[in-house]
Amino acid sequence: MVYGAIEAGGTKILFGVGDDNGRILDYRTIITTTPAAAMSSICEFFKRNPVEGIGVGSFGPVDVHLTSPTYGQLTTTPKIPWQQFNWVHHLRERLDVPVYVDTDVNAAALGESRWGAAVGFRNSVYITVGTGVGAGIIAEGRVVHGLIHPEVGHLLVRKHPNDSFEGICPFHQDCLEGLASGPALAERWGVKGEHLAEHGIAWDMEAYYLAQAVVSLMLILSPEKVIMGGGVMNQPQLMPKIRSQVVHLLQGYLCHPQITERIDDYVVPPALGHLAGLKGALALVLERCSSS
Amino acid sequence: MVYGAIEAGGTKILFGVGDDNGRILDYRTIITTTPAAAMSSICEFFKRNPVEGIGVGSFGPVDVHLTSPTYGQLTTTPKIPWQQFNWVHHLRERLDVPVYVDTDVNAAALGESRWGAAVGFRNSVYITVGTGVGAGIIAEGRVVHGLIHPEVGHLLVRKHPNDSFEGICPFHQDCLEGLASGPALAERWGVKGEHLAEHGIAWDMEAYYLAQAVVSLMLILSPEKVIMGGGVMNQPQLMPKIRSQVVHLLQGYLCHPQITERIDDYVVPPALGHLAGLKGALALVLERCSSS
Repeated sequence: MVYGAIEAGGTKILFGVGDDNGRILDYRTIITTTPAAAMSSICEFFKRNPVEGIGVGSFGPVDVHLTSPTYGQLTTTPKIPWQQFNWVHHLRERLDVPVYVDTDVNAAALGESRWGAAVGFRNSVYITVGTGVGAGIIAEGRVVHGLIHPEVGHLLVRKHPNDSFEGICPFHQDCLEGLASGPALAERWGVKGEHLAEHGIAWDMEAYYLAQAVVSLMLILSPEKVIMGGGVMNQPQLMPKIRSQVVHLLQGYLCHPQITERIDDYVVPPALGHLAGLKGALALVLERCSSS
Repeated sequence: MVYGAIEAGGTKILFGVGDDNGRILDYRTIITTTPAAAMSSICEFFKRNPVEGIGVGSFGPVDVHLTSPTYGQLTTTPKIPWQQFNWVHHLRERLDVPVYVDTDVNAAALGESRWGAAVGFRNSVYITVGTGVGAGIIAEGRVVHGLIHPEVGHLLVRKHPNDSFEGICPFHQDCLEGLASGPALAERWGVKGEHLAEHGIAWDMEAYYLAQAVVSLMLILSPEKVIMGGGVMNQPQLMPKIRSQVVHLLQGYLCHPQITERIDDYVVPPALGHLAGLKGALALVLERCSSS
């Protein structure tokens, strides 16, 4: 059986077909412009490649509550042409297959938990640090949605003593995203993250903020694996700094060998590489189709 | 059918029998001294009141992983005579019934979710603020354990600008528990919480710290209900202050009527009163016995 997967990001959309072993058999990439343009490419592809159902990992905010009348609908996204666009309605109408939608980070978390870095664990977190900061959470084997869905990017963090930057979050100014997202890095230092000196204070600060988020996630959820991806995490010096900050901030309080002895195997990069989002969307449709 | 419930706290232990509608039919209270003294009273009671199984909501740290060889065992508790005491071994040996153990806060969260303030919700949090600060979490219908178990009391919070108190946590000094637990209040102000002026800055600070924890829980878990209990929460002026601080800290970012319009019905006191812990332990044994 073949399933469809769509990874809809703010800059590009990937869509393809895969099997129930998590193999992506074929896929395409388009630039995110308007819903009309995207739907035309996507539907043409799936008409040539029929599938049992489609999973969508979408940028948000998006209604991810299966029983809601607006399930699959984007809400207050700053991408104007996409406001109120509903993945489920549009794809079902044109392709007549079941469609399941979750946030891009939840899909990625699900993919990593099924075939990636968190295989075999009932509790894991996937954090992405890029244009925004977000997290997908698996708690006791289930993707966490809750009242709305997790919004980890807006956690309130302690300011680094040497950081005089005010932050760029339009809601909270100096929340996690306001201080540690890619655009915050660029604004604070006047250059993009990839052009910053490898050993400068910039990365110590960045690690200090991201480690606080990891520590909050650990204290609240006690995950068995913390996965960190996204554009900003591509800087290889960042991950080791985050790990040491996590250990430092905890001060030995969470006493488990996974944390005290094997932190390198506890806070880790994604295992699914550049197809993580697409595989996550595939995991989403597989989970739903097999449980219904 | 009649089930046993034990609520083991640092100062007292309640034990009793209840039915599957959450009614406590009979119970006793003893002071927490030694395991030998407690086991003698408890076992005598359950020999006279036979039960199908026993649920224990225990102070911790305690091993709550059902498949662990040390399931039900207290570990590094500061209560020396209780170190390494194992609820499951001792109760099973003497009473020959199944025994299920969880943290006191997880049991309370489960009880509130089954018969109390969070009935009908798949996502809720029970926070207790007393000698320590802790939380029990239900995510997508399941009690969260994870790698160890949640340790919300040690969340790192932002210092209130007018607070010069250093905090009393032996690990982190000024984490949530270090700044906002009952003993922290007493140490900062020189008098116990119940003797502090009702309208003073003390309660604004307390609300500022506790609201930060609520906000972190909301951003990470998106609960449908937040329940706050424990000795410190008995001050009636505290809850309204926490609610306004939560709304203030979020700055309108989590846009849901439950938060923006009905916060009084979102952050709430426990509904099960003084038997919450015992009913939680009852909920625990009922859940396990019905799923096995």
